[in-house]
Amino acid sequence: MEQYFVKNIISGNTFVIDEPETFKHVAKVMRHKNGDVVYLVDTSEKLYVATITKIDVDDAKIITTVELVDNPSTEMPVSVTVACSLSKKDKIEWITQKSTELGARTIIFFDSKYSIMKWKKNVVEKKLARLQEIAKNAAQQSKRRIIPQVIYVDNLTDLLKYKAEANLVAYEESAKQGEISRLAQTLNQGYKSVLCAFGPEGGFAPDEIDFLNQANFLSVGLGPRIMRAETAPMYFLSVLSYKYELTVK
Amino acid sequence: MEQYFVKNIISGNTFVIDEPETFKHVAKVMRHKNGDVVYLVDTSEKLYVATITKIDVDDAKIITTVELVDNPSTEMPVSVTVACSLSKKDKIEWITQKSTELGARTIIFFDSKYSIMKWKKNVVEKKLARLQEIAKNAAQQSKRRIIPQVIYVDNLTDLLKYKAEANLVAYEESAKQGEISRLAQTLNQGYKSVLCAFGPEGGFAPDEIDFLNQANFLSVGLGPRIMRAETAPMYFLSVLSYKYELTVK
Repeated sequence: MEQYFVKNIISGNTFVIDEPETFKHVAKVMRHKNGDVVYLVDTSEKLYVATITKIDVDDAKIITTVELVDNPSTEMPVSVTVACSLSKKDKIEWITQKSTELGARTIIFFDSKYSIMKWKKNVVEKKLARLQEIAKNAAQQSKRRIIPQVIYVDNLTDLLKYKAEANLVAYEESAKQGEISRLAQTLNQGYKSVLCAFGPEGGFAPDEIDFLNQANFLSVGLGPRIMRAETAPMYFLSVLSYKYELTVK
Repeated sequence: MEQYFVKNIISGNTFVIDEPETFKHVAKVMRHKNGDVVYLVDTSEKLYVATITKIDVDDAKIITTVELVDNPSTEMPVSVTVACSLSKKDKIEWITQKSTELGARTIIFFDSKYSIMKWKKNVVEKKLARLQEIAKNAAQQSKRRIIPQVIYVDNLTDLLKYKAEANLVAYEESAKQGEISRLAQTLNQGYKSVLCAFGPEGGFAPDEIDFLNQANFLSVGLGPRIMRAETAPMYFLSVLSYKYELTVK
């Protein structure tokens, strides 16, 4: 059963789906009929099962009767931000989709010295809108309760605005030096929010690492193999899910 | 510094690179010169630093002096197999590349009831050769000591030939029922080899799950979010790396 985010708080027993995109998907793409059911998630992160009672094509509205579903949240108990160096279009779209499936709450793309791409100021809004749409679709598909926020910053200083309780930077040199314990040590501290920054294919410049370390980003190794730039954030998110969702005492 | 697999055991102080593809890559693509160095990994999983002493274009050979590098292995201390239901070409190529980066030793594709693809007998060899090439390139890039083996089986019974000490099946229904502890419990047992099977987008059929459970595959949940078919194996491999490589006491 598919899920849609609605931009309201659902209250009472009926809800009218009138966002054009959702109307179109439910009525035209999925061709739902009266009596069909879909999930709706409202802005308070609550999940409802909505039974279609009327599809009003003229007004592009769908009337539903709704019932709260008392399932446990699908959100991670820790707020996770992945901050990834800017890369090619298909890679950042891929990172956005997969990070959403894997539970990130915030996805930041940033410009760094060895990034192979830079967004010009006049395209940022359009590109973010496209990524935000990918995040929304992935969030609906993976049955999340929120749509992750996608953000762009064009320098590392601005990245610091988004710092979490614990801040990490995945650093290949740390891995090469055999650093294998800091990630687990950090995750054992019970932080409520964690951010990890990931460099581009060419890695961070040493002065960028220094800058982040000075800003209390802890350099962590993610194992002995060299991962591509887009793979490392997936590793990180998977590990956080395992740690916080599958190893509960 | 790039790494190449060679199909011999390196012994002595010199080694001649004469595999056509490697010769081409070193001499033509990377345009290496005398004095340049590359990594070579031989069939005994040993890593050597090779200094080029002569590039013989006529005979398509490169003479190198080699020195053993005593770095710790980049292979996981547990032998991990991911068995994935057949999917579209780009997805299985992607799974092959990412599973290699993330440390899988064996990558199996299998046909299942709700797979959207089936390989005809006459294309299997060619398709596997292509995937094996992707695995080799990813293994070189991620600095692995072995090239994972890519295998195809056209039914679940044949999958049983590849069983490990511990055998799992990622099952959405388990996750929905709140199953959150079996993966961690299994990984705490200290098995030397683990296999996990992953269904197609449409999931396993109930009788397929029954069949696997009968064959001692334990159904495990991988957290509360619905992951795409290609994302779940990445989650699994990342978790195994974390468990076996980053939480060592």
